[in-house]
Amino acid sequence: MQAVNLEKKHDLFSEHWSPKRIGVLNGQQILLAKIQGEFVFHKHDDEDELFMVTKGRLVMELREETVVVEPGELFVVPKGVEHKPTAEEETHLLLFEPLGTKHTGDVQADFTLESYEEL
Amino acid sequence: MQAVNLEKKHDLFSEHWSPKRIGVLNGQQILLAKIQGEFVFHKHDDEDELFMVTKGRLVMELREETVVVEPGELFVVPKGVEHKPTAEEETHLLLFEPLGTKHTGDVQADFTLESYEEL
Repeated sequence: MQAVNLEKKHDLFSEHWSPKRIGVLNGQQILLAKIQGEFVFHKHDDEDELFMVTKGRLVMELREETVVVEPGELFVVPKGVEHKPTAEEETHLLLFEPLGTKHTGDVQADFTLESYEEL
Repeated sequence: MQAVNLEKKHDLFSEHWSPKRIGVLNGQQILLAKIQGEFVFHKHDDEDELFMVTKGRLVMELREETVVVEPGELFVVPKGVEHKPTAEEETHLLLFEPLGTKHTGDVQADFTLESYEEL
């Protein structure tokens, strides 16, 4: 058994908006992602979703407000809340959510992933 | 709605081995803790437990091996596995585990907490 170094795991991939699974516990998955640019507005009707920033700056657009998440900070999007992650510079994220949470929630986009690679 | 800054939350308390709850999602709780010295060996029969280090150095003793967790790293103790967190210097942790997970698992100690303060 050994610890997981987040930066070293992030070094293993470069594509944006394509989360990688680095762990599972209690029916929840730990994902790492690199993002830059704009995602799509979507929501997860049954799942809360945690976003933690380790590098860069996440600007989470909600319908009524915008939340900025800096390195060393986390933000939980409650189930049912429409959200659109955006980042001006390349931003590294850790996500925590139930196994089976859909990539783009209630929305189907060209870049929607049906499953995540394991790292 | 706003982001949670982990370092600022850690600044709000000083006691060791006394986790504070900073969030709940999907039936799981996010705890922050400061530790120094040695805890007790214990296990959680039904819960996996995630430890992430943000400052210091966590030395997680298991029965057969020892896992060192540095800042920017995380380690998941699987359910049923006996573990004893230790830290030479003061170490800041983020824990992720199901709501209701017992502080010292299957062991009762003088310092066992029955509930956690919300931060």
